[in-house]
Amino acid sequence: MKIALAQLNYHVGNFESNTAKIINHIKMARNNGADLVVFSELCVCGYPARDFLEFNEFISQCEGAAKAIAAACTGIACIIGIPIPNHKPEGKELNNSAYFIENGEVKAIVNKALLPNYDIFDEYRYFEPSVEFNCIEFKGIRIALTICEDLWNDIENPLYITRPMDILIKQQPDVMINIAASPFAYNHDEERIAILKDNASRYKLPLFYVNHVGAQTEIIFDGGSLVFDNTGKLVDELPYFEESLAYYTLAKDGIITPEHAATVKVERDSDIEQIHQAIILGIQDYFYKSGFSRAILGLSGGIDSAVVCALAAEALGAENVMAVLLPSKFSSDHSLKDAEDLVKNLGCKHETVPIRHITEAFETALHPQFKDLPFNIAEENIQSRSRAVVLMAMCNKFGYILLNTSNKSEAAVGYGTLYGDMCGGISVIGDVYKTQVFELARHINRHREIIPENSIIKPPSAELRPDQKDTDSLPEYDILDKILFEYIEHRCSSAEIIKMGFDEHTVRRVIRLTNLAEHKRYQTPPILRVSPKAFGMGRRMPIVGKYLS
Amino acid sequence: MKIALAQLNYHVGNFESNTAKIINHIKMARNNGADLVVFSELCVCGYPARDFLEFNEFISQCEGAAKAIAAACTGIACIIGIPIPNHKPEGKELNNSAYFIENGEVKAIVNKALLPNYDIFDEYRYFEPSVEFNCIEFKGIRIALTICEDLWNDIENPLYITRPMDILIKQQPDVMINIAASPFAYNHDEERIAILKDNASRYKLPLFYVNHVGAQTEIIFDGGSLVFDNTGKLVDELPYFEESLAYYTLAKDGIITPEHAATVKVERDSDIEQIHQAIILGIQDYFYKSGFSRAILGLSGGIDSAVVCALAAEALGAENVMAVLLPSKFSSDHSLKDAEDLVKNLGCKHETVPIRHITEAFETALHPQFKDLPFNIAEENIQSRSRAVVLMAMCNKFGYILLNTSNKSEAAVGYGTLYGDMCGGISVIGDVYKTQVFELARHINRHREIIPENSIIKPPSAELRPDQKDTDSLPEYDILDKILFEYIEHRCSSAEIIKMGFDEHTVRRVIRLTNLAEHKRYQTPPILRVSPKAFGMGRRMPIVGKYLS
Repeated sequence: MKIALAQLNYHVGNFESNTAKIINHIKMARNNGADLVVFSELCVCGYPARDFLEFNEFISQCEGAAKAIAAACTGIACIIGIPIPNHKPEGKELNNSAYFIENGEVKAIVNKALLPNYDIFDEYRYFEPSVEFNCIEFKGIRIALTICEDLWNDIENPLYITRPMDILIKQQPDVMINIAASPFAYNHDEERIAILKDNASRYKLPLFYVNHVGAQTEIIFDGGSLVFDNTGKLVDELPYFEESLAYYTLAKDGIITPEHAATVKVERDSDIEQIHQAIILGIQDYFYKSGFSRAILGLSGGIDSAVVCALAAEALGAENVMAVLLPSKFSSDHSLKDAEDLVKNLGCKHETVPIRHITEAFETALHPQFKDLPFNIAEENIQSRSRAVVLMAMCNKFGYILLNTSNKSEAAVGYGTLYGDMCGGISVIGDVYKTQVFELARHINRHREIIPENSIIKPPSAELRPDQKDTDSLPEYDILDKILFEYIEHRCSSAEIIKMGFDEHTVRRVIRLTNLAEHKRYQTPPILRVSPKAFGMGRRMPIVGKYLS
Repeated sequence: MKIALAQLNYHVGNFESNTAKIINHIKMARNNGADLVVFSELCVCGYPARDFLEFNEFISQCEGAAKAIAAACTGIACIIGIPIPNHKPEGKELNNSAYFIENGEVKAIVNKALLPNYDIFDEYRYFEPSVEFNCIEFKGIRIALTICEDLWNDIENPLYITRPMDILIKQQPDVMINIAASPFAYNHDEERIAILKDNASRYKLPLFYVNHVGAQTEIIFDGGSLVFDNTGKLVDELPYFEESLAYYTLAKDGIITPEHAATVKVERDSDIEQIHQAIILGIQDYFYKSGFSRAILGLSGGIDSAVVCALAAEALGAENVMAVLLPSKFSSDHSLKDAEDLVKNLGCKHETVPIRHITEAFETALHPQFKDLPFNIAEENIQSRSRAVVLMAMCNKFGYILLNTSNKSEAAVGYGTLYGDMCGGISVIGDVYKTQVFELARHINRHREIIPENSIIKPPSAELRPDQKDTDSLPEYDILDKILFEYIEHRCSSAEIIKMGFDEHTVRRVIRLTNLAEHKRYQTPPILRVSPKAFGMGRRMPIVGKYLS
């Protein structure tokens, strides 16, 4: 039997493009002699469709798309992912399902049993878990078809009380197929391979695994679909961050023969390399799927905006990136020079809009209220917010989307101005700690100097008052980031972090700042998610709560 | 047996104040001769604690608080709500539990079985549902203790596959006690009474129901705890929007005698009256629990900011409200006059900060880029954003929190400026449609004219260009709001709404605008929730999705 795996980039709710893409790949697979082509979880509507799923009209459109796909699916079988109404009287309205389609008809329906509801996942919000499990017979082969999380109930620390494959294995299947929507995080590829390998070897079955690729707002799917033989050996690993269609012959004895030169990564890409690729895809899909092509950002001469500018130029083309220098009276000469060097290196468009007279206008207008009160954070923020108003005005006038340039460290401790530098349509590096931003800059410069060396080596500064440095207000970033990592990614207690050897006062202050900044993060743009614990929908904290604050 | 119901206002994560409040009420109840005092769901940590629950340190603090409460609980029994570790090997890390405490010890633990995971609820994110159900014996009485949603599995359209009371009833309990965290929506009190009444009459048992009161950021709990006799007759209804401690004698024959003059509302308060009370409590708790006391807002002379100003003055005291008039060259004389009249009627502080020179400074700075391109939304938004910068500067200088004044209709269709009038710490009327804002204004004026009649009757305008009216861009609000209500609250399809008699073009345009404005709403402040479907955590939509857009 010849099986095709279709690792594709869908668009949430765009039935027209998703359906066309699926049908097109069915045709290609049939023309290439495949018996079965496998698409990923909820491919019909895209993932995550979120509360679109609560609209009956949306669910009807899914069914309409499935009908069109089924009609096109003759002379070959396919597996697609689709949300369908739960026909049992009890439970949630929907099932997260897979259709097995053959000869233009849905021959079997499999419902997902294990519904992730942690971090970015909300599946139990919509779907009723399945409690029935049946293999699918197809051309003399018995297929154990499951959906993503169904294979992920950890043996050591089970999150769920059932394990679908323990039931399906009793029906003596010949092969496992798993359709997935498994999002990127820099450590997730290895975890995925380990979990799936474990399934193949435990159940002694070949395993075909098809993942999504592409970004849906902040969630990036990295592809990397996998094929294992019945000993748990990884036979093939599809490309990361791009679409792919691959063919395999599955023999009666379970031997899998790829039709192409199958590749398995001998060495994993570094975290930074993966983050780099993920962000490029994240930017591209954010713009493409919103129907925009041109980005704007404020360039300070510092490393954060330089890295974002370089990533945007790579993702969208330098000609589609407008960098704006917005000097105030506190901007240093070297900052302007560094920003200009970057623009030159990238070849992107740029403008300079000095904000001195704008901030003076604010200060004059507010003089009756502020009188002679000393310069403080109010005037600092006026600068940052004036820049945002200029950038947004250019967006409104010319049709750009503003890129946010905040990093994860400053987003964590609230070292940023709400409605100022925290503005933007999408946050590009908001899930990248400052110390990782330095690594990313070095990585971007790996072939030639794009980001000026001076932007990398000079002490970070917001330049909102004379001689300001980030370290006036914050610990050194190598300390800060380690504390933040333990608190955010590992959810360690303050006591545990202090026990690791960090200064008690610093730890308590960093955690306190992080918890107090929740109200700022609530109003910031979606953040491209590259870590296992990003700010945004994966981390839901009270605002007016009191905890270590 | 004498039972006390403690309907209290907790603060998420504030163990010190929650524990002290619980212990204080245990003492009061004991001094008053009660055998048992009942607190509400998850009272120890507050509700919703959200991802605080994922921190082991937070859970330890809950257990520490419970120990202190138990130590104080002698000579009386109490029921408290608390998150506890799930000690079974499978499933989520926690249970949403109730402790039955007697003689300083936890005598029984009940775990919640039905975990709401819709709208604002995320309980399945944290908790494993219970599958075991046992009554509690106390002084010869058998108590069927359940937690909130446990009694809410609808008979007609069951959302869950189990019903805890169907199991507990077999153990022949004498009384039902339900501890809850049931948030306010203007129609929820009636629904709550109907569901609980149905439980009391179906199981032929008296029912004591204790709810939270108080706001946790955007979620407002309205109290209104309930007592039913074993025929389903409502015996008592505790006050709404305030704390209460009430006593009841439960006789062997199931007869309930309140110790006070029990009251049951003969006539429900109107929706607007309830919304009014909810918003007042919402503002008060937002400020009190964040440690702030003073609010600022921009006053345009229009009805939205007038209503917010009046509500803030009522909630915080007029002396704690700073109203800022921010005229531009497009502001009409009557707007300034209306704003001044309002300030006079309320007696709140006010300042005037003209923004004309500020917007001119932006236009001058941007002239090299904008050249002689015609005035458009870019310049309109510069005005709105300049106002936000002024207001935020005053926040930073003087320690105010900015109140957002957007209404639900404009938040829906995106008729507002991101980082401009969409700014603020909390959105006061963002869950109130424009047509309801008019009702609210009339209600606020029910005793005397507070909001100038002219602000109510003049055609709504953003005054960002000459002679602008909202109806230049939007349908009349009475049409717009009806379409929005069907789409947002009822999740009707465009076809269904058109079939109701609305103009097809208008319906499609309104739905399209609503879906396209998702990126704006993502970055707006938390919105005090007063309806069953508010923007924010209860409505989670894709941003870069394509659906009816």
